[in-house]
Order: sequence, then C-alpha cells, then structure tokens
Amino acid sequence: MFDALRNYINNYASSQISEEDFDLVKQAFKHKKIRKRQYFLQEGDVCKYTAFISKGAMRQYSVDENGNERIIRLGIENWWMGDFESFVMLTPSLYNIDAVEDSDILMVTNEQMQLLRAQVPAIEATIKVMDQNRAIAYEKRIRASISFSAEERYLELQKTYPALLQRFPQTMIASYLGISPETLSRIRKQLAVK
Amino acid sequence: MFDALRNYINNYASSQISEEDFDLVKQAFKHKKIRKRQYFLQEGDVCKYTAFISKGAMRQYSVDENGNERIIRLGIENWWMGDFESFVMLTPSLYNIDAVEDSDILMVTNEQMQLLRAQVPAIEATIKVMDQNRAIAYEKRIRASISFSAEERYLELQKTYPALLQRFPQTMIASYLGISPETLSRIRKQLAVK
Repeated sequence: MFDALRNYINNYASSQISEEDFDLVKQAFKHKKIRKRQYFLQEGDVCKYTAFISKGAMRQYSVDENGNERIIRLGIENWWMGDFESFVMLTPSLYNIDAVEDSDILMVTNEQMQLLRAQVPAIEATIKVMDQNRAIAYEKRIRASISFSAEERYLELQKTYPALLQRFPQTMIASYLGISPETLSRIRKQLAVK
Repeated sequence: MFDALRNYINNYASSQISEEDFDLVKQAFKHKKIRKRQYFLQEGDVCKYTAFISKGAMRQYSVDENGNERIIRLGIENWWMGDFESFVMLTPSLYNIDAVEDSDILMVTNEQMQLLRAQVPAIEATIKVMDQNRAIAYEKRIRASISFSAEERYLELQKTYPALLQRFPQTMIASYLGISPETLSRIRKQLAVK
C-alpha cells in the first residue's frame, strides 16, 4: 500500500528515505479504498485532505449551469488529487472529485503535511520538486489553451500523458481538453488517416 | 529601488526581514533598467534570471507560425517575470519577454535564489507562499480557459486584476484572454450597455 508512496519520495527526493522517517510518513497518511463513482470531494465542502493515488484513476471537475461536467484534472497511480486552493485556504471547493476506477488512496491534511515537511527532509525535498513540476505543467496547459488548436491540444496530451488516453473514456478526455466529444472523435479519425 | 522588494518579502513572510539578511538579498539581486519594447528574454535563449518588477509593466508571449503574439503572462510592480521552466531547467525558452513600459527590475539567478532560500528564512517563507499563490492562480486560469465564455473570462480578469486592464493596451488584454481584439471590443460594448 505504502510502497508506491515510498518509491515516489525516493525518486523525487533523489535519496532513500530512512525507515524512521518513513514511519512518520505512514503515521501521517490515512489509507482509504474508494470505489468507482464514489466521491472524494463534493462541491461546497472543504477539501480537508490531499490524496496520493497508489492505485486507480480519479478526476476533478465542476458542473456548469447547464449540467455539463468540466474536467480540470485527471489522475492515476503516483499522482496527487485534491483541490489545492480549498486544501490550503480551507475554503469551500468549487469542484467535485470522484473515482473513475476502484482506487486506493493515501490521504493527508495540510497541517500534517506541513509538520512532515519540517520533520522529514526527504518530504521537504519531494514537495519542492512537486511544486516546481506542477508550475511547469500548469504553464504548459495554459499555453496550450491559449495558443493551440483542439488537434494540437490532443496531440500534446498524447505526447505528454499517453497513459491518460488509455484509462479514461473519450467523453472525459474531451471535457479535459475543453472540446465536445464529437470534435474529439473527428480529430481522432483525421489523425488515423494521416 | 530595493524598497518594493523589502516590502514584498515582509508582507509574504509575515515578519520583518533583518538588515543583515536583507544585505544578502541585495547582494544576490542585480538592478537593471529596461526600456519600453526592450527584451528581457528572447525565444531560444535560456532564461538565466527571474525578475522582480519594482516599477513598470512587462509581458511574456510566444509568436505562432502566422506571426500572432500569444500572451501567456502580464506583470506590473511587485510581480515576478521569467519563464519558469527555462529558469529552473536551463532549457531554451519558447517565449519572449519584453517591457511594455519603461521598467526597473531586480534580477536573480536560480542558483543564487536557492542559496538565499537556504540562508535567509524570510526568503524561504516568501517563496513557499509565492509557490502556493501561483498554483492557485494557475488553477483558476486553467478553469477559466476550460469552463468560461470569453465574456466570463474578461469579467474574471476585471475582478481579479483590475490594474492590468488600466496598464495594458486592449490588443494585449485580448491576446492574454485568448480572444480577438474584435471580440474583446464587442464584449466591452455589451457590458457598458448592461
């Protein structure tokens, strides 16, 4: 259960976390199984936990006034899930988060995470790299949304996160790209011919 | 010159930085005047510095194959400017950054910044808050790009950063919002009537 998180930390911190330090991590995180279609967070609630996905697939989305789901984030094994603003500011979330497959998650509060950062150097190092990578990924996504056509956005996703295309239904991929399922279907057909 | 940066640090770190520590900051940062339309960064170059804008206005943009400028970021006093990915990874930048008004900037390399983080607790605290705020701002922008109409994106910008609307020409605001100047003009006229 905790092996994925241990590997993740060792990889991001570029060093092996000690058994003693990892015991602190294990005490701070709470394991939860979450079934397909079960909510991790509902709009209006405070996102008290951020979750490390050790197995499964999840999505974060809002629902517009016409009932359309707008997916802002998709996540699979070794990704984190949570509404960052609500988690940090303890404000009601604008988002829903639910499981797209049966999932195993490890949950931690922001208070516990800040404590861990202060106590465990490998966690501090991991979070610094995570913050950096997140900023870079977000800048790429903003750039794609401003500058790229729908086809280019699809190709970028295919190049950067090919695993997502295998794990999530086409309707969710379309929503994540900000296009209609019909447009995505047309793009895929055109690319298949090329 | 350095007063704006000192106030910024005191505000973000929620404490007063000592004279001794601020001397280290002053040694690490290099002052530069940059005139309207002068480049801070050109596409293909490595972004060796990140800049704190103590006076002026700047923009970060790419140029598409048809010669259209796509603005990814606007900045004024007390904001930072730089291509984060290139700055951290030392890879060639996909962006240009130039001054939209005559500007005063304080420049620092990533190496110096990491040294400062280790030496000066107020800098470490400041950067943690900056990282957090940046992640929240980027998530909002991604959400707007997926879920919001052009009018809603304009209203969001007006609400969140009203100063930007005063400082940058309409063509740049339109580019930042990912819409044509004609669409922006139509939206503004419609809102004036409401």
